[in-house]
Amino acid sequence: MMASRGEPPATKVVLLLVPHKDASFHAALRERFRVLDFFASECSPLPAFLGAAAAAPEPPRAAIVVGAGLIPVDAAFLDAVPSLRCVMCLAAGVDFIDLDECARRGVVVANSGSVFSADVADHAVGLLIDVLRRVSAAERFVRRGLWPVQGGHPLGSKIGGRRVGIIGLGNIGSQIAKRLQALGCIVCYNSRTPKDSVPYRYFTNVHDLAVESDVLVVACALNKATRHIVGKDVLEALGKDGVVVNIGRGANVDQAELVRALKEGRIAGAGLDVFENEPGAPGELFCMDNVVMTPHVAVFTAESMSDLRDHVVANLEAFFSGQPLLTPVLPHSPVN
Amino acid sequence: MMASRGEPPATKVVLLLVPHKDASFHAALRERFRVLDFFASECSPLPAFLGAAAAAPEPPRAAIVVGAGLIPVDAAFLDAVPSLRCVMCLAAGVDFIDLDECARRGVVVANSGSVFSADVADHAVGLLIDVLRRVSAAERFVRRGLWPVQGGHPLGSKIGGRRVGIIGLGNIGSQIAKRLQALGCIVCYNSRTPKDSVPYRYFTNVHDLAVESDVLVVACALNKATRHIVGKDVLEALGKDGVVVNIGRGANVDQAELVRALKEGRIAGAGLDVFENEPGAPGELFCMDNVVMTPHVAVFTAESMSDLRDHVVANLEAFFSGQPLLTPVLPHSPVN
Repeated sequence: MMASRGEPPATKVVLLLVPHKDASFHAALRERFRVLDFFASECSPLPAFLGAAAAAPEPPRAAIVVGAGLIPVDAAFLDAVPSLRCVMCLAAGVDFIDLDECARRGVVVANSGSVFSADVADHAVGLLIDVLRRVSAAERFVRRGLWPVQGGHPLGSKIGGRRVGIIGLGNIGSQIAKRLQALGCIVCYNSRTPKDSVPYRYFTNVHDLAVESDVLVVACALNKATRHIVGKDVLEALGKDGVVVNIGRGANVDQAELVRALKEGRIAGAGLDVFENEPGAPGELFCMDNVVMTPHVAVFTAESMSDLRDHVVANLEAFFSGQPLLTPVLPHSPVN
Repeated sequence: MMASRGEPPATKVVLLLVPHKDASFHAALRERFRVLDFFASECSPLPAFLGAAAAAPEPPRAAIVVGAGLIPVDAAFLDAVPSLRCVMCLAAGVDFIDLDECARRGVVVANSGSVFSADVADHAVGLLIDVLRRVSAAERFVRRGLWPVQGGHPLGSKIGGRRVGIIGLGNIGSQIAKRLQALGCIVCYNSRTPKDSVPYRYFTNVHDLAVESDVLVVACALNKATRHIVGKDVLEALGKDGVVVNIGRGANVDQAELVRALKEGRIAGAGLDVFENEPGAPGELFCMDNVVMTPHVAVFTAESMSDLRDHVVANLEAFFSGQPLLTPVLPHSPVN
């Protein structure tokens, strides 16, 4: 197969900064590009690897970086490989990429676009139903053998009629809204600017959105404007019957304040896929039945991994052939 | 308050065979009817209580029975209180009421109608998302502190594009279908007769439905025709990547076969709110991460309990004033 196609052209050199989890992903890249694979390289630490790549006769023009911010794409990174002109990020959130520094150097940035949007929206809805209807708590009750002993489990709350405020109405937020409408929820939202095409009530700030919401769903990108966008005052506005669902980034929520509000009963519950210091969730939450926690898996399905592979290849092929990226992040937008 | 309204009329005598869980429910009934409350009575066991009620100068003409089948409404029960002309069941499923015996005696039967439909549909969707996206399993992973130690959690499956076969397209099944459409699922169904008003593909039998489904959702009533409607052959037709969700009645599924199929990996997972011998779920399932179990709570929200109260009062007022019931079950229909 490889022989008949010939070697991938030397000019299509790609830095791959992604841990090995999905062999088919790496194979698909190697078939099309000359791949400099950091996690397969013996040339560590990273600065040495980048230095060697940059000094090669054909230095890399593109880099693929993983979404979790394992390797920050900052000025130092970009300086280490001045040949870079494209950064492909395997997530929707690019909070660990310094977009200003990229723009200054003419480096284009692509993200995962809408590859994960439906999966993340499904997971958000799953967390919302779980918290309101106490699914995981009821699950523990059954598995501990308490059902025959104690009888009834505490009542959950009806989903229909709940006012759900979505922070960030991008690809993911819009898909969450669509699902919530089918569940009979009343959707409202906050985003940088109101969207003309949607029927939901718009709030110019998150505090006012929280006042009018039973559930707040965090679905925005993380950047300077959205860091701790759900803080003490917003939690107070949400109130003691309110629930927070976060499938954005951990730091969109002031986690210490969230934990305090949950401990003191100042909000009713939380469904969290993301946390401020991953991997790991605050131990104080482990004994709470009104909290549902998942380990940053909202994006992960077997199907989305395969879609992602195709998406990355298509973006890089576009870049190397001088075409526009399919899912450019620049120009920089602070909130979805 | 009570004095100004006077005592409830003696002719509106109601047998109440419902354990005390919701004080406002009992209070609302006592305000409007003369209530003979078995669980508050010192006259037990049940036959003695029924005998005394039947022998009173104003014997009861209606009975309110709880949904779980705690007290079967069979020939013996009806014979014990020949004055009964109405049975009000606090559930959608009336499998523990002998409808033929009721019809023979001119006893009308009402169920909870669509009071619980939205809540049950929400719970069904919650179970489906939970099993496919491994929410409860991921929850355990986080709470056991495994995330920082082991890193990634196994991939879930995408919801969108899944073929979901619904058994029973009544109030509940229809509401499940609506929610699944918003999630991008391909809905098909089996019921006694095809419904003209829905766009979903119809199957005349559950075996063929299972062959064409990734997920089977059991949402039918329990009766002779639907007992073990999901048995060994249907599970085999569903196949090793298939998932069963049951929010109907435990005995709609052959539980022993389901447990065997799960143990042997002949189906992929299950989301179960109901079981064959409640309270309690088969202990063999307690160690399985691909199974989600809740203790028959799909109908229970604070809001549905309040709706139910109004619904019961309205049905009984209709009965006592000679009007048709709001949600009659008779004439008897074998499957939704």
